[in-house]
Amino acid sequence: MAAPHRPYQPGHATSQTLHHAWRTAPNSAPHLLRHLSSLSPSPRLLDVGAGPGTLATSLASHLAPLHGHVTATDISDSVLARAAAHAKEQGVENISFRTASVYELPFKDGEFDVVHAHQVLCHLDGPVEAIREMLRVTKPGGLLALREADMKMWGFWPESEVLERFSALMARVMVANGGEDRAGRRLVEWVLQAGVERGAVEAGFGTWCFAEEGDRRVWGIAMVERLREGQVRGKGIELGLVTEEGVEEMVKAWEEWMGREEAVLGIVNGEVVVRKPDVRA
Amino acid sequence: MAAPHRPYQPGHATSQTLHHAWRTAPNSAPHLLRHLSSLSPSPRLLDVGAGPGTLATSLASHLAPLHGHVTATDISDSVLARAAAHAKEQGVENISFRTASVYELPFKDGEFDVVHAHQVLCHLDGPVEAIREMLRVTKPGGLLALREADMKMWGFWPESEVLERFSALMARVMVANGGEDRAGRRLVEWVLQAGVERGAVEAGFGTWCFAEEGDRRVWGIAMVERLREGQVRGKGIELGLVTEEGVEEMVKAWEEWMGREEAVLGIVNGEVVVRKPDVRA
Repeated sequence: MAAPHRPYQPGHATSQTLHHAWRTAPNSAPHLLRHLSSLSPSPRLLDVGAGPGTLATSLASHLAPLHGHVTATDISDSVLARAAAHAKEQGVENISFRTASVYELPFKDGEFDVVHAHQVLCHLDGPVEAIREMLRVTKPGGLLALREADMKMWGFWPESEVLERFSALMARVMVANGGEDRAGRRLVEWVLQAGVERGAVEAGFGTWCFAEEGDRRVWGIAMVERLREGQVRGKGIELGLVTEEGVEEMVKAWEEWMGREEAVLGIVNGEVVVRKPDVRA
Repeated sequence: MAAPHRPYQPGHATSQTLHHAWRTAPNSAPHLLRHLSSLSPSPRLLDVGAGPGTLATSLASHLAPLHGHVTATDISDSVLARAAAHAKEQGVENISFRTASVYELPFKDGEFDVVHAHQVLCHLDGPVEAIREMLRVTKPGGLLALREADMKMWGFWPESEVLERFSALMARVMVANGGEDRAGRRLVEWVLQAGVERGAVEAGFGTWCFAEEGDRRVWGIAMVERLREGQVRGKGIELGLVTEEGVEEMVKAWEEWMGREEAVLGIVNGEVVVRKPDVRA
């Protein structure tokens, strides 16, 4: 049995999941889409920690022409119910949902052609153990595709000392919750620690760019929500990392940033794709 | 006449251009390759600040099936001679070379379908003026494609205080040379200042990932060369930013980094593609 782990700390309030819903396979899983043509017919994909399910649903649409199926898991029943409603709304049918812990996936060894997790390991206190469990349910010759943020690689323009403080606060809250703010750059290390050979790992970085007005607003409003209602405020104040006034200053800085047409925010995510060996050692 | 500008400071010694030669259109100009199919037949592309010419030559190979032609410029005769030799060696014939300053391009208004510059503006004290000149030689309806490093968005693993000091030193030398260490995130601002409307700008970030052994060695050896022979040492010591011992410590840190199979370096580049309006205001 696995050792007890901290539950998922950020929670699933709208303030937390608003910008998660912006995620689609093309903007958040390009490292995996590149490999779709190499999959066997009718591929089975497991999306671990699917949250509000927009990325899982988008992956399912991409698998539909291949007669593939997506199983989406999350530790939270309520967020999975929202994910199921989203898939239905989108008319996507080749997807099913199951509540599960990443540490104890209720699936047989080698059950999936592809196992995928996006921004999941950064929240865990046992990322290597989680990777081992995901590899267990990956079929020999199949793929494990991981993508994690690297909060030390954000780039804001215009320069803003307040926004720099905000991103440092986000990172500190993540670490205080038992997560890792530089998960993106640690993925190679973690998969090696989980027993993968270096030659089976393809590593890269993918970015999100919030620069056009609509994208600036999606991100900015989500960050304001996190400051006003979410974890960043609650935990940040509880831990003495920020004051009420500091929070209001950050809200103002985001609002100003959103309104500037030269504004840019670059966010960097580490990506790995692991090909599980076909013959076990 | 343009005001006098600082000449290109880094110089063209092998220590400076070694890793430039690693650049190809797929790894360094994906933002432009995406638009190739939208170009008119027989497109003419200008590559400004081509350096050793591997990227210009790679772009020329990609334009060959479209019967396109690349004109590559650089301020340095000697580096252009190497670029010409490289193109010949690769058997690429749809490319020509011309010594020129980015501030005074020896071409007519609207002469090119595409104008491209990669890691050029970050070295200039007049990036906006350079963009205006590049736009002048872009045909109405044509494209200006820019890509610039953002040295504040490097991500190393394993953590290394010495390598962090190295990248800060690189950034300070670049700034001391009159350049901009965060050019990547400033591209949108600069093209707007050059008179482009926000709606004509597509912005993003592209990455290089040095993680596989061969890539780690290309980058690590280039950085060691820069420390041992290049600008980083010379200018860094001259400005009192680093000592001889500090340089040797950085060399050792790179050599150790290169040898570790979990090592990763993510480098982030800002990208913009501007569509020049077809009817002038």
